[in-house]
Formats: sequence, structure tokens, C-alpha cells
Amino acid sequence: MWYRRAVSTSIALPTGLADELAAIVGPDGIVTAAASLAVYECDGYTLERAIPRVVVLPRTTGEVARVLAAAHRAGVPFVPRGAGTGLSGGCLAAPAPLVVCTSRMRSIRAVDVANRRVVAEAGVVNAEVSRVVRAAGLQYAPDPSSQNACTIGGNVAENSGGPHTLKYGVTTNHVLAVELVLPDGEVVTLGDGIDDGLGYDLTGVVCGAEGTMGVVTAATLRLVPLPEAVTTMLAVFATVAEATATVSAIIAAGIIPAALEMMDRTIVAAVEAAFHFGFPTDAGAVLIIEIDGDTAGLDGTATRIETICSTHGASRVRRAADEAERAALWKSRKRAFGAVGRLAPSYCTQDGVVPRTRLPEILARIEAASARHRLRIGNVFHAGDGNIHPIVLYDERDPDESARALAAGREILVACLELGGSVTGEHGIGVEKMTELGLAFGPEDLALMRRVRAVFDPDGRANPGKIFPTPGVCVEQRAPRRQAAL
Amino acid sequence: MWYRRAVSTSIALPTGLADELAAIVGPDGIVTAAASLAVYECDGYTLERAIPRVVVLPRTTGEVARVLAAAHRAGVPFVPRGAGTGLSGGCLAAPAPLVVCTSRMRSIRAVDVANRRVVAEAGVVNAEVSRVVRAAGLQYAPDPSSQNACTIGGNVAENSGGPHTLKYGVTTNHVLAVELVLPDGEVVTLGDGIDDGLGYDLTGVVCGAEGTMGVVTAATLRLVPLPEAVTTMLAVFATVAEATATVSAIIAAGIIPAALEMMDRTIVAAVEAAFHFGFPTDAGAVLIIEIDGDTAGLDGTATRIETICSTHGASRVRRAADEAERAALWKSRKRAFGAVGRLAPSYCTQDGVVPRTRLPEILARIEAASARHRLRIGNVFHAGDGNIHPIVLYDERDPDESARALAAGREILVACLELGGSVTGEHGIGVEKMTELGLAFGPEDLALMRRVRAVFDPDGRANPGKIFPTPGVCVEQRAPRRQAAL
Repeated sequence: MWYRRAVSTSIALPTGLADELAAIVGPDGIVTAAASLAVYECDGYTLERAIPRVVVLPRTTGEVARVLAAAHRAGVPFVPRGAGTGLSGGCLAAPAPLVVCTSRMRSIRAVDVANRRVVAEAGVVNAEVSRVVRAAGLQYAPDPSSQNACTIGGNVAENSGGPHTLKYGVTTNHVLAVELVLPDGEVVTLGDGIDDGLGYDLTGVVCGAEGTMGVVTAATLRLVPLPEAVTTMLAVFATVAEATATVSAIIAAGIIPAALEMMDRTIVAAVEAAFHFGFPTDAGAVLIIEIDGDTAGLDGTATRIETICSTHGASRVRRAADEAERAALWKSRKRAFGAVGRLAPSYCTQDGVVPRTRLPEILARIEAASARHRLRIGNVFHAGDGNIHPIVLYDERDPDESARALAAGREILVACLELGGSVTGEHGIGVEKMTELGLAFGPEDLALMRRVRAVFDPDGRANPGKIFPTPGVCVEQRAPRRQAAL
Repeated sequence: MWYRRAVSTSIALPTGLADELAAIVGPDGIVTAAASLAVYECDGYTLERAIPRVVVLPRTTGEVARVLAAAHRAGVPFVPRGAGTGLSGGCLAAPAPLVVCTSRMRSIRAVDVANRRVVAEAGVVNAEVSRVVRAAGLQYAPDPSSQNACTIGGNVAENSGGPHTLKYGVTTNHVLAVELVLPDGEVVTLGDGIDDGLGYDLTGVVCGAEGTMGVVTAATLRLVPLPEAVTTMLAVFATVAEATATVSAIIAAGIIPAALEMMDRTIVAAVEAAFHFGFPTDAGAVLIIEIDGDTAGLDGTATRIETICSTHGASRVRRAADEAERAALWKSRKRAFGAVGRLAPSYCTQDGVVPRTRLPEILARIEAASARHRLRIGNVFHAGDGNIHPIVLYDERDPDESARALAAGREILVACLELGGSVTGEHGIGVEKMTELGLAFGPEDLALMRRVRAVFDPDGRANPGKIFPTPGVCVEQRAPRRQAAL
């Protein structure tokens, strides 16, 4: 019923390619039956769907290489896919008909505790990495909300963030090397697996490239020590404005919390209905504030934060009493998106960024968009980063309401850019933000990016139809570039 | 007298180009007199020298753009140059005859305290950035030893590190956007100036590209809060082995010091002779250990470190009593390279990396190389990072000794690679490490890097003859790539 980009179509496969692929990955490593292929029709971005013609599930880098070499010979484009938890349609199987799914590549090849790094294959689940090294006092810091399902390959492709991005940085800050199968089936290693890089930083380019440069089959990940102690606090406010002013004040006080998350009234109500954590449903907004570090300093920092919260109008600030309460609090936050399903038949999560100080302004703009388009919009986001996630609630069976939802989302992103921000913080561009990318960058900037992509993927067969408005190979024309306004 | 790459030659300038450049930058912005040009014959890597044909000192991005456009029309290659403090010959004016020196671009265009960022032009001195924002409780974290002279443009080009890299990361971790003048004179902005990047991470590629992609004219830099408190300690050991075991033990205890530096007997003696700090000259090695953070936690952490030091054989551990003593300690460390000038007529500083746990092994290899080649080698390095800086002492008037110095340096780098490390930690490749780059990467990896460079610099006119063994444009042939061994 959705009026825009309803269902896309994959291009046809040449005769014989499916058999050739089956010979490489074995009969249990290929999906060709229509019912089974439907599982792969979209990721967490459901506004556009496309059923692939064939899905392969290789077990080794060698198999990935042979699959891509076969696709290369046949001239067939492909889509890398991890766990399918992406939120911008990055693994939509259109126009490419062949999905290369790395979810069966689940080995942790090496754990190097002394040098704090681990080599994980693409299909290793994010949370598994931290589980494996916890006994050694280490963790893998990036923690997307989907961390119990999403995989390292997808995290690298999307350069995923998470609540703890504020203190620890996003995926790219924790990837020391990647093993990449190029679109012609050749295997390269980028990065040397140690912190100080040598040569051009190609690892950084592949992080966040959303599969447009080939298939990442393994990554060397940096580990960080588990903090000695963690304190998690919940602060309750009457208004979103008070909560955002508190965020600015905490940061201005020189405190870098491990996480600083906000949920507004709409989200709190949904989360409370789903998880019964005990959130006050009459609150205008709540902040989840986590600090970590040495035991000795933590109590003092927590007290300072409590004072800042109270000064800025918090009606209540409470510290999680124990690990169970802390876990419950985070579960509520991390499953907020799921809980929202109770509020409306459909919802669309936007992902934008503004400089932290512009949070009050963007929230006012979101409220204005909500009123103008007669739509409920909930807000749950990484406040410390300025990374907003307005959730636009609508009913996709109503074309007019759907159109208004789309318009509201677009207005919010334009507002992010006007306030000096960006149109995606952590969900990627995929198919969702292709148009918006053109708002942030001029044609000359995009041409430069396309030419970099063409270095890895000269034929434009690696996840075409993503990121850039028009798929395909390198645009060679050199349009005049915009004068930089830094 | 040095037998290798003694003096290089710049190619000749076409007639009229110098006049055209003078018209752009004005008579006070161009250097053409032989005596003045000699100042630009090398950077901190003095083994190779080349006098440029012309040096321009533009004041604005517009002037840089017009200079590069003129060079483009004339088909002339150019060398970007900052303060000339580089250590690998990255701004050697050969074969390119035209030096574009950004040292007069000294504006700090914007200070955004609330969002913790600053826009600095390429010629702003590193330490100046921190000075400007200190009153606001902020700092720019990367702190190369040359920070009172080196400039942001050069820091970006070399992706510079420093003692505080251990905790805070290198330059690329603190650059949110760059303004880059491409080799044809067009100006682009890479990155959007906020932490969560959008599109491919081209900022990361330009950081550390050593000027081979154009001239960086400004950068948006991330600021971090000044720590509430800092404690700096000096630990004295009888042997280097005890000191490196202590380094491993501190890290293994889950402590991340702000800095963790080692100096061996040779360096301590030189530093003491120069600065009279009061170092025990009979010590086999000293560690400078700095921790920072909240006041409350710091004393406990310092005590834990003191215990670890004592357990591992430290004869003495002392905390800097006040800011003056702390400053003196860092001054000694940061000027160690200069102090070494007292020990021998010539010295060559190597820059390599090993995984932290392999420090004892690499130090044993350095000692063996020292004995085998009958050369004194001092060690001063970022121990926490595994980033070694053996300083090979020799007399360049003695060709045999010079040859042995070169051989020893090369052996040490090969040993770094054998131990799973890298051939440069923070000094870059420049002309010094071009051969060694080929030890770390296969021809296929280098071809990929060359093709990325060609996206920015299709004619190969941006700092040719650096990084890659053979200068020039993109190598289009696709040699078989090595199977990755991650």
C-alpha cells in the first residue's frame, strides 16, 4: 500500500550461474526456492522490498572469493548481507539479484588478549565478541541496539554506532584491519592490524561503504578494557527542553559519560507498556546516563551529574541499584524501537545528527513537523552525540498519512542540515537516504566518492543502487567543485 | 658524504611560471633566490636533500587554489610543506620543483566551544590550538614532540602521533573535516565536521596521505576536555627488560595511562647532560608514566602503578611534585631527539611498531643489531603503543659506519614486520620508507592504494616520488592479489 518504491525487481540471472554457485557452496549453502527467498526481501527498512533470485551462504573466505569470481565472469551484480538488521535498505536485493550472506562465517579466528585485539569473521554476532573476551577483562565497545543479532560484517559495512559511541567511538574507530573480497573475487587485506596505520587508510574507507566495495569476510577488531565500575542513572524531566539543556550542561562540565540517551513521553509510554520497567509515564522526557571508569572517581562524578540534573529541573534522579536494574534499563532502551510497534500500525525511524548544542532547536522543528503533518513523532536518541532518532508513527494503509510521514521525515533531515548536522548518524544511506545524500554533498563531492568506489569496484557490481542516486560505475566528468565553506 | 640518495634534483620550471605564481601570491609570498631556497632543501630527515626551484607561501585557500591551477596548466608537480619538521622526507622538493608552503595560513577560523571543535588553517602551530581553547577547559589531544613548531597541515599530512596517542589516538581520530585543494586547483571539503561521518570516509584517506592528494588548507579538529587532574611519574629500572615488563603489566592491569614513555640509558644520559632534570644516569631505563582523569580516582591509580613498578624491579618511583616538575619532565622527553645530537656527529631515528607484548623481543633484536654493526643505538619511545624509536648513532663522514647504520636500521624494521608490527608508527613513509613499504604490502595492495591516489591526483603531480617506490599515476594493471592472512 506504500506509494513510494513499493517493490523493486532484481534483474534476471544468466542460465547456469545458480548451478555454478551451488557447486561452490554446496546444496545447503544456496537458496533458490521462492518461499525461502522471501526471507531476504528486505532488512529493517521495510518500505522497499525485493526478492532476490538467489542467496548464497558461504562458509569460508575461499568460497566467497569463488562466488564473486563466478559473478564477475557472468557480469552479475551482488549484494553483501549480514544479519539483515540494517535500517536503511543497504542489503536490498535490487537491482542486484545475487545475495552473498556471510552469516555462516562465524569463526573467531584469533583472540590476542595481550595486544587487545580479536580477528572475527563477518558472521560473528556483535555481542559474541564481547562475551568471548569478557573473562579477560576486555570488551568490544561498539554496541548497536541490535547487538544480539547483528554481525561484524554488517557493522563494518554500516560503520555502526550505539549508545556507547559517545565515549568509545563508532565501528571504524575499532577496526584495525579488514579482509575484503573484491568484486572480481580477489582477496585483499587492508590495514595491518595494529593501531598505527601504514599507507593510506583504506580500512576506514571500507568501513561504512555499505558493501559497495566488495564483501568484508573478516575484521581485526580492537578491544578495550572493561571499566572497573559502571553507574547508570535515570533522570526524569517534565519537558524535553529541560532534558536537552541537561545534556549540554553535563558535557559542558567536562564529563564524558559512557552513554547519554534520551527518550520522550511517547517512547517512555511505549517502553513502559512493553517492559514494565517502572518508568514514570507522565514524564515529558527521561535521560539514561551511564558513566564508567575507576571505582574511586565514579561516585563523585555521579553526584555532580545528579546536581546538574536537579539544577536543570529534573524531578527525580535515581541510580540503578544493581546489575539487574541496570540491565533492565538498557533492555528498555535498546528495545525501544520494537516497543513502538504497539503505538501505530507502521513507523519510520529517522536518523539524523545535529551539533549537540542544536538539540533544542531540532526538537522544536520535529514538534513543528509533527503538528503540521498531524502525525505523532516519538523521540529516542543518543543525546550526547546529537544523533537523533525521531520515530514517525503512521498507518501505511492510508496513502495520505504515508505521504505526510515521508514529508515529515524529509523536513526533519533538511532541518538537520540547516542546523549544521548530517542526514545520517549511524544507519547508513542504503536506498533510504540516496536523495538526501545529494542535499549534503554537491555533485563534485559525489563524483569524487564514486571514483573512489570505482577503484574497488570498477564494474559497479558491488551493491549497485545504494548510496548514490544513480547506480553504476565511476563518473569521469569533472564538474566544477563547490567552493568549500568549512 | 652519505653514499645513498645524496642529493636529489628538482625538475626545471617552465618559463613564465614563477612570474605567474608571483602575481598570485605577491612579491613577499614567493622565494626564488638560491640562498633562501636552501632553507627548504630538507625536513627533519636530512639524509636526502633537494633545493626547490621555487617556494610559494600563500595566505589564503584562494591563493593555494590559483597556485595549483597554474601548476596544473603548466603540468608542473608540487610538494606541500608545513613547518618542515617531518621525519621521513615527505616534503623533499624532488622531483617536484614547486613547494607550496602553508605556514602563513595561520587563522583559526572558528572556535566552537559548545560543540568542541575548532577550524584551523593549515599553518596554525599544533600547540597554539590547545592554547586558544585552554581557558574553555579544552585541548587538542595529538601532541607530537615538535608541537611548538609543527603545523596542523603537516600533522594531517603525516597523521602525526605523540606521547598522548596511547589514550587519545592519533591525528586522524581528531580530524572531523578537511578543506583540500586538489591538484587541479579545485577546492573540496571532505567530512561534515561532526563525529558521525556521512558517505565514504575520505577525510581518513587524506589524513596520512603525505600530500599525495593535494594541499590541505584547513581542518575541523575535535577538542577534548582537559582532564580534571594529571599525575606524572618517573620510574627507574636497572634494565630495559624490567621496564618493558612493567609496561605490559600496567596495560594488563586495565590501566590506560595518558602516556607511557621509555628512555634507555643512552638517551637518559644525553637528556640529563642537556637539561639537568635530575635523571639517574646509572639507570638502565626510565619510564615516564602519566595518568589523567577525575581527581578522585587518580591517587588510587597512581598507587597501583607504583606497586606494579616496584613488583617489576623499579628501584625508585617518584611523582612529579608540581606543574613545574611535570613540565620539566616532559620537556626532557620531548627534546630527547635534540639532546642526542651531543652523542655523535650524526644520528638516524627509526620509527617502527610492534604489538606491545613483543617489546622485549624487538629490544633484544635492536641490541643484537647494535652489537653486530658496532654502533650505539639509543631507545626512546612510546612504550604503551609499541611504537619504537631506536636512534642509531654514527658519523656520516665515515662511509663504512654510515653503511652499517643504514643496515642496522633496515634490520630493525624487518624485525618489526617479523614480530607482527609495522615499519612506521607516526613518522610517515616519505622518501625514507618507500622501499620498506614494499615489505609490508604486496604489489597488488600497493596498486589499490595507487588507484585511490589517482582519484585525487590523476596526473600524479601531488608530491610525486613519495610513499610509492615509483612515482606517477595510477597503475591500471591488475596483478593477482595475495591471499589475505589476517
